[in-house]
Amino acid sequence: MSNSDRTGRPRVVVIGGGFGGVRAAKALGHADVDVTLVDRTNHHLFQPLLYQVATGILSPGLIAPALRRVVKKERNIRTLLAEVVDIDVHGKVVHAATPSADQLDLPYDYLVVAGGATHAYFGHPEWAEHAPGMKSIEDARMLRSQILGAYELAELATDEKEREAYLTFVVVGAGPTGVEITGQLAELAQYVLPKEYRSIDTRQAKIILLDAAPSVLPPFAPKLQRYTQRQLEKMGVEVRLNTAATDMDSEAITVKGPRGEERIIARTKIWAAGVQASPLAAVLAKATGTETDRAGRLAVDPDCSLPGAEGVYAIGDMVTTVDRLPGVAQVAMQQGTYVGKQIANRVKGDHTTPAPFKYFDKGSMATIGARQAVADAMGFKVTGWVAYLLWCYVHIMFLIGWGNRLGTLYNWVRSLRYARNRGHRLISMTGAQEIAERHEAA
Amino acid sequence: MSNSDRTGRPRVVVIGGGFGGVRAAKALGHADVDVTLVDRTNHHLFQPLLYQVATGILSPGLIAPALRRVVKKERNIRTLLAEVVDIDVHGKVVHAATPSADQLDLPYDYLVVAGGATHAYFGHPEWAEHAPGMKSIEDARMLRSQILGAYELAELATDEKEREAYLTFVVVGAGPTGVEITGQLAELAQYVLPKEYRSIDTRQAKIILLDAAPSVLPPFAPKLQRYTQRQLEKMGVEVRLNTAATDMDSEAITVKGPRGEERIIARTKIWAAGVQASPLAAVLAKATGTETDRAGRLAVDPDCSLPGAEGVYAIGDMVTTVDRLPGVAQVAMQQGTYVGKQIANRVKGDHTTPAPFKYFDKGSMATIGARQAVADAMGFKVTGWVAYLLWCYVHIMFLIGWGNRLGTLYNWVRSLRYARNRGHRLISMTGAQEIAERHEAA
Repeated sequence: MSNSDRTGRPRVVVIGGGFGGVRAAKALGHADVDVTLVDRTNHHLFQPLLYQVATGILSPGLIAPALRRVVKKERNIRTLLAEVVDIDVHGKVVHAATPSADQLDLPYDYLVVAGGATHAYFGHPEWAEHAPGMKSIEDARMLRSQILGAYELAELATDEKEREAYLTFVVVGAGPTGVEITGQLAELAQYVLPKEYRSIDTRQAKIILLDAAPSVLPPFAPKLQRYTQRQLEKMGVEVRLNTAATDMDSEAITVKGPRGEERIIARTKIWAAGVQASPLAAVLAKATGTETDRAGRLAVDPDCSLPGAEGVYAIGDMVTTVDRLPGVAQVAMQQGTYVGKQIANRVKGDHTTPAPFKYFDKGSMATIGARQAVADAMGFKVTGWVAYLLWCYVHIMFLIGWGNRLGTLYNWVRSLRYARNRGHRLISMTGAQEIAERHEAA
Repeated sequence: MSNSDRTGRPRVVVIGGGFGGVRAAKALGHADVDVTLVDRTNHHLFQPLLYQVATGILSPGLIAPALRRVVKKERNIRTLLAEVVDIDVHGKVVHAATPSADQLDLPYDYLVVAGGATHAYFGHPEWAEHAPGMKSIEDARMLRSQILGAYELAELATDEKEREAYLTFVVVGAGPTGVEITGQLAELAQYVLPKEYRSIDTRQAKIILLDAAPSVLPPFAPKLQRYTQRQLEKMGVEVRLNTAATDMDSEAITVKGPRGEERIIARTKIWAAGVQASPLAAVLAKATGTETDRAGRLAVDPDCSLPGAEGVYAIGDMVTTVDRLPGVAQVAMQQGTYVGKQIANRVKGDHTTPAPFKYFDKGSMATIGARQAVADAMGFKVTGWVAYLLWCYVHIMFLIGWGNRLGTLYNWVRSLRYARNRGHRLISMTGAQEIAERHEAA
C-alpha cells in the first residue's frame, strides 16, 4: 500500500498526535503542502491530566478528543491510524503498519517526528508489571481499576495483614505527576470514600510518596517545595526523601533511604519516576549514525532538524537540544509550531538559515490536592487556592475544544470537597483481579 | 471466608446491582435488617443509554455510578464486589467468588436474586464474536472501538470492495435498542464524521436494520411504527422487515427475507435481537426442581417469591410471571421496590399474604436520531421533537445523581446537530484490530 500523490504538492509526514505533532501539523494548515498525521491511537491525549482519569475525576474522553476532529478544519491534513515501524531517511519513506497489519508506506519531502516518551524503570523493566505508570488512556484506566479495586479487595479481606497490604499505596517519584497523583490518592482516602465502606476505614490507608532527591518537586523553588511537602503531610501522606526503590515484587517494594533498607508491604505501587524516549529516537539515531543519550533521546540541531537526514525534524520528549530543555508539554508545543512554520517558509522558497529554537518558559505548576497548588511562573511564586485557580485556568485553556473545557470544569466542580464525589469510577474486573493476582503470586 | 454475623438482625442478600437489585436494597434501607448487595461489577449500570456510549455521545461514567455510592446513605447496606457461583436454597447460603478467587459464603434469611439477562443468539452462540451486543460497559466500549475503527480502516483501505465492507453496518433486531443504535449510526455517518475524513465519504456508509417481524418497534402502536420506519429511511437507513439472519461470519451476514436469501458483505454487525436470562435462573430452577422457559427465565409466584425456596425472591429480566411482563427497566424497578417492602413487612412480623405484584405501565419510548423520537404512554402517542424532549426528560430523571444528570444533559447539548460532535470517541487499537482481523480471517 502506498501513499498516492494527491496533489503534487510537497508532502509532510508528521509522526505522533501529541502536543508537538498536532502543533506542527496545525502550523502547516494553511501552507501549500499535503500533511499526513500518523498516530497509533485515534486521539490527542492531554497527558498532564491523566492522573485525574486514574483517580476518577475526569472521563477519558474529556482529555482525549478524536485526533481527526482536532484537525478537521485543516483540509490539507489527513489523519491515519497506524503504527510507525521504521523510517528510511535516505529513501525518504516512513514505513507503518495499519491495524489490519497491512504495510503503509508514506513518502515524504519533510518529516516531523514527535514520538514522545514512555516510562523508564532505571534498568529494571520487570518493575513495570508491579508499578504501572501513566502515559496512555489505557494506563490510566488500568490504574483506576487497581486503585479503586484495592479498596474493594480490602473490604472483602478477612485477614488484617492482607487488608493493610491493600490499603498501602506507594508512589515512586515526587515530580509534578507523582505529587499530583499522591494528592488525589489522599483525597480519595480522606474525603471521598470513607462513608461508602462498612468493614474498612479508608482514612487508615497509608499513602507513601518517595523520591531519591532531597526534596519534592525538584525543579521548583525551595519555598514551594517545602510548602508542598507540608501540605501533603497535612493530608496524611508520608513523604520519604533521599529514598530510592531498590527492589519490587507483587507484594511489596523495597526502598533504601536515611533509615536504611526497608521492605514496605504494599499491593499498589505507582511509577512516576523516569521517562524513556520513544523507540523512534533510536531508529533515527541508527539511520544517521549518531547515538541517543541515557534516556534514549536523540540530539537535534538548534533548529530541531536532524543532522544527516535531509528534511527531518524531531521534537518534544524524544529529543535533547544544547540548552537541555525539560520534557514538558510547553517545549513540545513550541517546537511543533516552530518546526511547522519553518517548513512552511521553506516550501515558500525561503531557504535562509532559521533562527534557533528558543523556549519561552511560562513557568511550572502542580496541584497538591484539597484545592491547593503551587505555581512558579514569571518570577512569581504562588501557593494555596490562588495557585490552584491559576492552575485550573491554565489547564482548562490548554485543553482542545470548548466542549472538553466546560466538561472538565464541570467535573472539577463535582469533585469539590463539599460534593466529595468522583464521577468516573468504573473499574474493570480485570483491574481488580490484577491487584488480587499480585496477592496470589506473593 | 464467611459472612460474620454483624448485628444479629435478619440478613438479606441482594444479588445484582441493576435496576431491580438497587431498588430492592434501597427499599430495605430503613428496615431493621443487614443488607448485603453483591455484584460482579462496581457500578450500577443504566443500560437504556448504553447505545449512547457505543456511539460516542456519553462517557461510560455518566451511566455507571459506583454502586457503593448509590447506597452510601443506607448505612445497613454493604456492597461487595464478587461473582455469585451457586445458591444453596436449603442451607440458605449464597456462594460467591471474590476477584482474588477466594470463596465468599453469604448466609441469608431473605434472598433477592436480580441477575438480569444477557444476549441470546437463537441457538447460534458462535455469532457472538461476529455480532456483539450491548449489555455491559465493556460491550459498549468494544462496540465503539469497532464502529469508529471501521471508519479508520475504510480511510486506510486501498481496495474499493474492502472499503465498502468496512462502511456497511448491519443491526439485527428492530426493537427500541436496535432502532436507537441504528439512528445513531446514521447520525455519525451523515452529520458527525463527513468533514473529518479525506479519502472516504462517510455519507456513503450503508446502514441496514433488519428484523424478522413485519414492523419496527413491535410493542408500539402501528402509527408510531410507521413513523419510525419513515424517519429512519429519511436518514438513509435501509429497513428490511420479515427478514432474519440465517448465517454469519467475519466477513458477512446472510439474511433471508421477501427477496430470498442474500449474503451482505459487512464487517460490522450489531446484535440487538434476543435476550437470555442470567444463568442464576437455571441455578435456582435446578435447586427447586422446576424448569426455565425458552429464554432461560424462571417462573415465580405472583408475589415474586420462588416456590420451593423459603425466603427467596427473584425479579427483573430473569423471571416470568403469569402476566408475561416485558423485560424492561420499569418492571425490574417496581418488582425491586415491591419485594423490598414485602421483606421489610415480614421482618416487622407481618406474615399476611401480600397482594400480588402489579405492574404499572408508564409507557414506552425510543429515540430515532436527529432529535426525533416516539412515545407511547398513557394512551398518548407522540412523535417528533416533542417525543424527543419527553424522552430526554424521562431518561435524565431516571439517572442516579444530579452530577450524572447534568453531565448527560451537557453531552446531549454537545451532540446537537449544529455542534455535530460526539465527545467520547476513544477507540482502542484492540477494537480496531478486531474489526481488521475479521477481514484477515475472511
